[in-house]
Amino acid sequence: MFIEVFDDEAHQIQDVKWLAQGTIYPDVIESVSATGGPSATIKSHHNVGGLPDFMKLKIVEPLKALFKDEVRRVGASMDMDKQLLGRHPFPGPGLAIRILGDITAEKVRILQEVDAVFINGLKDAGLYDKVWQAGAILLPVNSVGVMGDERTYEKCVALRAVESTDGMTADWVNLPYEFLQKTSNDIINKVKGVNRVVYDISSKPPATIEWE
Amino acid sequence: MFIEVFDDEAHQIQDVKWLAQGTIYPDVIESVSATGGPSATIKSHHNVGGLPDFMKLKIVEPLKALFKDEVRRVGASMDMDKQLLGRHPFPGPGLAIRILGDITAEKVRILQEVDAVFINGLKDAGLYDKVWQAGAILLPVNSVGVMGDERTYEKCVALRAVESTDGMTADWVNLPYEFLQKTSNDIINKVKGVNRVVYDISSKPPATIEWE
Repeated sequence: MFIEVFDDEAHQIQDVKWLAQGTIYPDVIESVSATGGPSATIKSHHNVGGLPDFMKLKIVEPLKALFKDEVRRVGASMDMDKQLLGRHPFPGPGLAIRILGDITAEKVRILQEVDAVFINGLKDAGLYDKVWQAGAILLPVNSVGVMGDERTYEKCVALRAVESTDGMTADWVNLPYEFLQKTSNDIINKVKGVNRVVYDISSKPPATIEWE
Repeated sequence: MFIEVFDDEAHQIQDVKWLAQGTIYPDVIESVSATGGPSATIKSHHNVGGLPDFMKLKIVEPLKALFKDEVRRVGASMDMDKQLLGRHPFPGPGLAIRILGDITAEKVRILQEVDAVFINGLKDAGLYDKVWQAGAILLPVNSVGVMGDERTYEKCVALRAVESTDGMTADWVNLPYEFLQKTSNDIINKVKGVNRVVYDISSKPPATIEWE
């Protein structure tokens, strides 16, 4: 479906010849079978096998052989903006893959607000650049809470923050207690529809950075 | 249904007159409406309103007016075993209420094993008595992981540990990073069916101690 939609869009641009993709080496490794055979791959959403013949675009992937830290070194040698270079990796399909279960406009709204509280909180606390990647996952799970004298039954979000140099392996970050406490309270108090926050304490392997 | 099942069982015991319940004051507070009217209550599973007339048992609840720390003081003054007195609160319905979604024998097996790793880990690390209540919740959520060259798609468990004096309010505990790291790894490596662990960083209010 990705290929079909992409091809339709590409045909609307005049005289286009090339498709540039930001593929890096870990994408290549994790999208191909380790044995060369039909065994399971880790990532299922990457289009690193090239494009089908019917597409008129040729593909160019200048970063395909580099790990992320090497990509950043290339960028630094080209005097690129530090904020661009230091930006956390973000999933190609967007926040949608961080909504487990069915995706609705309301769930996207909730996750956007949670993500903003978390990421801006990291920046305000001077922690953003100490973390390889951070994000929030909306779980398809309701749990009981209490607001005033009322019982609530609302959604749970998981926060994820990992340290890594190449994305191939990653450790969850020991964020300060006060930061997690404040962030959890801010999310529950400010984002309507959320009454519980958990922090992912799994490393990669055996877990992955993104949940899907 | 609780009343019906209970009544059937009670009729099988000869000459029984009394039902002793371990109800304590927070159960009473959280099971009745704050306004006296039909508004929402926090806990929905407690039977503190007394038994229906058709039951032959009379109820006795000697601890009904005491908070947990007061119950423990009464027990200490009676020279009760410290391990009994210091035992964490545990939900009456058992691990079943810590399995979100449908309950199967396989899920109970997973949660029993996770709970054993977590609770025994707390005891081994000398942390059990520093925590008011700890437990694990099995989420109805699968996520991607990686074991060797294989992609996995297995369950996520949430760990919960809170500090409190009366159970009415509770703060999540800042367990040591090394402990959480070891526990997370032990669970994922030893318990078949789990590939991700999260730690609940919500306080009560606005969340609750148990999820259901």
